[in-house]
Amino acid sequence: MPEFFNVLPPDEARDLLFGHLTAVLPSETIPTQQANGRVLATASTAPHALPQFRRSTMDGYAVRAADTFGASESLPAFLQVVGEVPMGQTAVVELGVGQAAIVHTGGMIPDSADAVVQIEHTQLVSNQSPVSSLQSPNFPFEIEVLRSVAVGQNVLQVGEDVRLGAEILPAGHILRPQDIGGLLALGIMSVEVVRHPRVGILATGDEVIAPEESAGPGQIRDINSYTVAGLVEQAGGLPVLGGIIPDNFGALETAAATLLAKTDMLVMSAGSSVSVRDMTVQVIDGLGQPGVLLHGVATRPGKPTIVGAINGKPVLGLPGNPVSAMVQFDMFGVPAIYRLQGVTKMPRRGLVWAQLSQNIASESGREDYVPARLEDGANGLVAVPVFGKSNLIYTLVNADGLIKVPLNKGGLLAGDWVEVRLF
Amino acid sequence: MPEFFNVLPPDEARDLLFGHLTAVLPSETIPTQQANGRVLATASTAPHALPQFRRSTMDGYAVRAADTFGASESLPAFLQVVGEVPMGQTAVVELGVGQAAIVHTGGMIPDSADAVVQIEHTQLVSNQSPVSSLQSPNFPFEIEVLRSVAVGQNVLQVGEDVRLGAEILPAGHILRPQDIGGLLALGIMSVEVVRHPRVGILATGDEVIAPEESAGPGQIRDINSYTVAGLVEQAGGLPVLGGIIPDNFGALETAAATLLAKTDMLVMSAGSSVSVRDMTVQVIDGLGQPGVLLHGVATRPGKPTIVGAINGKPVLGLPGNPVSAMVQFDMFGVPAIYRLQGVTKMPRRGLVWAQLSQNIASESGREDYVPARLEDGANGLVAVPVFGKSNLIYTLVNADGLIKVPLNKGGLLAGDWVEVRLF
Repeated sequence: MPEFFNVLPPDEARDLLFGHLTAVLPSETIPTQQANGRVLATASTAPHALPQFRRSTMDGYAVRAADTFGASESLPAFLQVVGEVPMGQTAVVELGVGQAAIVHTGGMIPDSADAVVQIEHTQLVSNQSPVSSLQSPNFPFEIEVLRSVAVGQNVLQVGEDVRLGAEILPAGHILRPQDIGGLLALGIMSVEVVRHPRVGILATGDEVIAPEESAGPGQIRDINSYTVAGLVEQAGGLPVLGGIIPDNFGALETAAATLLAKTDMLVMSAGSSVSVRDMTVQVIDGLGQPGVLLHGVATRPGKPTIVGAINGKPVLGLPGNPVSAMVQFDMFGVPAIYRLQGVTKMPRRGLVWAQLSQNIASESGREDYVPARLEDGANGLVAVPVFGKSNLIYTLVNADGLIKVPLNKGGLLAGDWVEVRLF
Repeated sequence: MPEFFNVLPPDEARDLLFGHLTAVLPSETIPTQQANGRVLATASTAPHALPQFRRSTMDGYAVRAADTFGASESLPAFLQVVGEVPMGQTAVVELGVGQAAIVHTGGMIPDSADAVVQIEHTQLVSNQSPVSSLQSPNFPFEIEVLRSVAVGQNVLQVGEDVRLGAEILPAGHILRPQDIGGLLALGIMSVEVVRHPRVGILATGDEVIAPEESAGPGQIRDINSYTVAGLVEQAGGLPVLGGIIPDNFGALETAAATLLAKTDMLVMSAGSSVSVRDMTVQVIDGLGQPGVLLHGVATRPGKPTIVGAINGKPVLGLPGNPVSAMVQFDMFGVPAIYRLQGVTKMPRRGLVWAQLSQNIASESGREDYVPARLEDGANGLVAVPVFGKSNLIYTLVNADGLIKVPLNKGGLLAGDWVEVRLF
């Protein structure tokens, strides 16, 4: 395929790529406690109701609500306390008319009770030995109830948290700490999750050396392999580094085919000169079908990104410039990793609102991403653009996020409120 | 210490806690490639300038800018191309007046050149054998330059990314993928980071059983240990689970002292009944100085949170309710974990703006956190409150984030634009 620029806006480019991807990777079963951040492969349903028994939401007395009707400070209801429900045990005490039992927050409600009076709305009837904080009282004793309770008041009903058989989490959901808690609450000790997508990463270029090497004149250290690997990990993928390949068609072809065969996605940091990009396009086209889908995205930085797919696997040729490489991988690679895991609702990247400190020029028909530092200002956050060429990794090091200048807007003005995507 | 409520707003409570914490934990040296998400213990400085040599930002010709002055489409400048700078090698070619050399994007600029003319602004002088894409041409050959370039144009200067000796990252910085790239670009192969804070977690309660156990009447599974552990990991800490302790002063005292001795922070899921909370307060006070700092935070959920410190280590007694426990740990535990790592700028949690679907009532003098689901609406995102008692973990499972109702606001109205903190 010759040098050409079939340039699409990022959203259309992503849709085109997604249309060529394998649905979802295979799943594996892992312990629930280790599933934080993983993606559910199958929906989970509740094996039992939660709670499984009626629980008190207050420290106080389990009662029959009817016995308290009409009770007030001036006309209290008198109840006989006949026992206590110990925490963690079945409520065996039975309440007759006019009787109550001590219950603690979270404790079980006796079958014969239908409400809880909180302790603050009761007082002990005098002429009794004092009962201290409901610790080891002598039963029976009498209390005055100073407020009436309705049926069900201060009681958690069976299934109020989750009903038996309810779908609790859908397939494609990224598990968070509360989800792990929700699963464990139901005794679900293992979950089926999509396995980590393996992402092969190649650096290319005669001038590129490993970071641990001493850089001579004309040489630069490979950093794109590591910045992309960091983004891969954040999205739930496993980076597989394929090393640095010289600008040689045969070497790149062999390295790409070998790495793609053992991974679910291939990323080549493709260099920035036209001849190297052309070579990357040819290599991708030679790997299988359909090959290169488009060469060029209407964004800055990162216009000469190569987007392709081989047998359902995404293949990306990133610009060699470190800023372009990260921004473009975030735009295509990260969503593709989520997509391979079957994520239905892409996680929202952190966004903050800030007021722009100065004008930003842009061209209509192009989506611009401008690195920005966030500072505290009088009216909230201020976004200060960090201008710098896309060859300069420190423009991203010195930035807190990226300002997006929308596709068909000629730029942004100082004082505009903008969304800054934390990066 | 008897049951009391020294209730403070969350910000003041956090400041009080922070005032009693050890400055920063000890550091350790690890490979830079593994330092993503870790916190720098010492500032990093640049051991050399970046780039170390002048590089071209374009495919084209290295020239002496003066030779192009006045050049235009109608009156091009004629230059003699005498050589090429191969990628990754020293630019050995020397340019006399009126001479140029082929350079590729990222390649080194010859000493005698001071600018680059991009190839699109040149054309070959006819009567020459064709030169295809600058691949293997025969030198010398002649070109016409159709636009003038200024000194330095299309050239990355030595130190333009980072100057020799510049502070590139401060102590207390949380390393991101681009920071790893920035360090590796300078050949910095290891970094000193603060070691992971170890966070001891105890669950308490006679009714609490391990998640893998079968729950009988009156019993519930421990989930707070695992939801808190998930938040600990997200903040860069290492959870150390201490198991489930019965509601017994001696047992809790021993377990707490043992776990605190081998960790940097202790969290007790303290149960919700007043007597259990009282016991937790006494246990914390018995562990050392200063003990409990305050008992009660002006928030919902989570008012009865116990905040303490023992010899510079944070000690928290969380409410037993799962929603309260998570929200309160996020409010005190998570910032404390960052603080122990010396983080100077707390990471911003993801925030999104959404329009409230219905009124939310609140009490003045209290900060409320209301779980909410995010839905797509006609004007952007809609935040739909997920109401539910703080005993119900599924209110958080079904939510995408938390809406904060500020301290002295009586509530929020349907249609208000609110900030939703992703959770």
